[in-house]
Amino acid sequence: MFKINENYLKLPGSYLFSTIGKKVAAYTEAHPDKTIIRLGIGDVTQPLAPAIIDSMHKAVDEMGVKETFRGYAPDLGYEFLRTAIADNDYKSRGADIAADEIFVSDGAKCDSGNIQEIFSIDNKIAVCDPVYPVYVDTNVMSGRTGTYDEKTEMWSDVIYMPCTADNHFAPDFPKETPDLIYLCFPNNPTGSTIRKDQLQGWVDYANKNGSVIIYDAAYEAYIAEEDVAHTIYECEGARSCAIELKSFSKNAGFTGVRLGYAVVPKDLKCGEVSLHALWARRHGTKYNGAPYIIQRAGEAVYSELGKEQLKKQVAYYMNNAKVIKEGLQSAGYTVSGGVNAPYIWLKTPDRMTSWEFFDYLLETANVVGTPGSGFGPSGEGYFRLTAFGSYENTIAAVERIKAL
Amino acid sequence: MFKINENYLKLPGSYLFSTIGKKVAAYTEAHPDKTIIRLGIGDVTQPLAPAIIDSMHKAVDEMGVKETFRGYAPDLGYEFLRTAIADNDYKSRGADIAADEIFVSDGAKCDSGNIQEIFSIDNKIAVCDPVYPVYVDTNVMSGRTGTYDEKTEMWSDVIYMPCTADNHFAPDFPKETPDLIYLCFPNNPTGSTIRKDQLQGWVDYANKNGSVIIYDAAYEAYIAEEDVAHTIYECEGARSCAIELKSFSKNAGFTGVRLGYAVVPKDLKCGEVSLHALWARRHGTKYNGAPYIIQRAGEAVYSELGKEQLKKQVAYYMNNAKVIKEGLQSAGYTVSGGVNAPYIWLKTPDRMTSWEFFDYLLETANVVGTPGSGFGPSGEGYFRLTAFGSYENTIAAVERIKAL
Repeated sequence: MFKINENYLKLPGSYLFSTIGKKVAAYTEAHPDKTIIRLGIGDVTQPLAPAIIDSMHKAVDEMGVKETFRGYAPDLGYEFLRTAIADNDYKSRGADIAADEIFVSDGAKCDSGNIQEIFSIDNKIAVCDPVYPVYVDTNVMSGRTGTYDEKTEMWSDVIYMPCTADNHFAPDFPKETPDLIYLCFPNNPTGSTIRKDQLQGWVDYANKNGSVIIYDAAYEAYIAEEDVAHTIYECEGARSCAIELKSFSKNAGFTGVRLGYAVVPKDLKCGEVSLHALWARRHGTKYNGAPYIIQRAGEAVYSELGKEQLKKQVAYYMNNAKVIKEGLQSAGYTVSGGVNAPYIWLKTPDRMTSWEFFDYLLETANVVGTPGSGFGPSGEGYFRLTAFGSYENTIAAVERIKAL
Repeated sequence: MFKINENYLKLPGSYLFSTIGKKVAAYTEAHPDKTIIRLGIGDVTQPLAPAIIDSMHKAVDEMGVKETFRGYAPDLGYEFLRTAIADNDYKSRGADIAADEIFVSDGAKCDSGNIQEIFSIDNKIAVCDPVYPVYVDTNVMSGRTGTYDEKTEMWSDVIYMPCTADNHFAPDFPKETPDLIYLCFPNNPTGSTIRKDQLQGWVDYANKNGSVIIYDAAYEAYIAEEDVAHTIYECEGARSCAIELKSFSKNAGFTGVRLGYAVVPKDLKCGEVSLHALWARRHGTKYNGAPYIIQRAGEAVYSELGKEQLKKQVAYYMNNAKVIKEGLQSAGYTVSGGVNAPYIWLKTPDRMTSWEFFDYLLETANVVGTPGSGFGPSGEGYFRLTAFGSYENTIAAVERIKAL
């Protein structure tokens, strides 16, 4: 008789955003007259930039003609896209990453979930707390996290690095040495980031301790301050200890287009074994490449016209961030984030729990946000709002919250 | 110090098609004047059907306009596509599968690699021999296959079900009872299939023994004979023992478009635990949906115009299959497949090994095929040619082989 992967049963409840979706659906059904404004899930709302649309039309046409039709893509991505990424995201910043160290994928969520597969089940992971749920949940599914304590909402074999107002939302080095360290800067969900010299400290720490940093740089395009690294490979020594994950979802609005990439430098080794080779083997065996049309869309992100158009798109969302941040501050909320990231992280008022504030905001202001506790125990008492709504909705949501 | 997943190191050599690619590249470099005809990898060559192209242009336009822009897709697929699949691939055949039992993905390769994750590491798998390499390799990566014997080219903990001329390429029930049974009909690589009553036998066997059948129906569109099931759910009892995987790659030429789906019926349970819920959890945590544009392309596959155009595309490839089959037979080869599948499976002449015949064909006829032994030990002495080339190339390849 077959058996299931029992690790799945350890996962508490359902995925955070599914729970939110169900709560909102129930509220909407009960109050069909109310207009909900969603500033919860980090989903973009602006249409794709014209340069990207043009590029996709062209690629669609190519697929309809025998001479230019493309079948299976190269497993690791088309050369035209890998070169554009290497040139624009790395060489232009003085970071030494070659095109063949870039693995094109269908998004950073998949990569951040799959990357743990190439590591031993015995490896111990460290995560920021609060954290993007996918890092922990995918390690739970693999059996790497021990047992769950419902009271503390923590896993016995996970090293949590609290990020709260006390440490300005920047993790301290953990007491116990981890094998894998998940870092995400600019951070989801707190919207904060760390300076380049702080990131260099993490690279040094990883190299010294034989740890691998899985660096999620999905929000890199939102960096506004000078002393923040755009890629971990700006730090010396990162090639021997860091994997970087990048998304096209937030810089180019590709949440419904699906494109991302992972960088696995050839210097990253466990003894004689190259992690680059392991990840290539995984890609070649379990993945079949991103669609040609979508890879051409990715290429357009790096065209002169694309860059210009997307700069405006990022500015549009960052203006929303400013509106939320200043509006909430003027209403007396304690707020952080929103400077180098499209997320606003606020302290819930009146000692409400995160979910209490979620219900309160949904029911009184008809605004949907994300409860901080959904991202980990240290997120309790916090709440995330995103800048990815339309300007009109963002203004309206802030007015509603201010009127409470 | 971090450690890697040691199971990856057990994988012998590199992925079959990478090896072929390297051999062909080396030959081409040494003989730049030769024109290679590729009938190796199962990649399509005909352009996408006009109905699909039109549908994608429309979807691209929608993504460029604020009012119709789409962000994150529903994890499990858009309702419009899931309904089209349920209606056309199941209801129309009298198979009882609901839209919410269908999980849209970026292709059957990914699904067939990922599906093992929801099962226990202790489960024992059975595969046909020869077999599509992804089934075994992904189980190796998870540590489910024991040790590899280089001499027999077999894994200690895998149950092999030989499919050779002796049993008309239809597997017999194994002596040892497996937990998971991978079946693919019409078959890759042998091009053979089994009758519906034989498939019913497998469903009965699985239900009796508490096994799960992972049924890869990627080549369903090529079925020409009346007594062959188009879906395993035509068999009574399949809802409680079978997962079906489908691809759009071969029926609609989507190898470079990337779309597929898995069917996990709600009746499929391990005790109280529904596999449908486990797979939904995996999708929600590790995957972020297929691109909107691509899902609209999938929808067009089921439009009246799309169906008509794709029927012609399948007929085009099946005419190639006929050309290869009859050509090789007239040249004295022993050939099977090519009736309900786009693959021709031939016995290598003069007791050549599969790789010897690969080299011989590459060097003397400049035709690339796939060595049968690359699909498993019982594939030794066989060779696969695909019907996915252009008609002109197929004719030319057959002429070259006949002239040897």
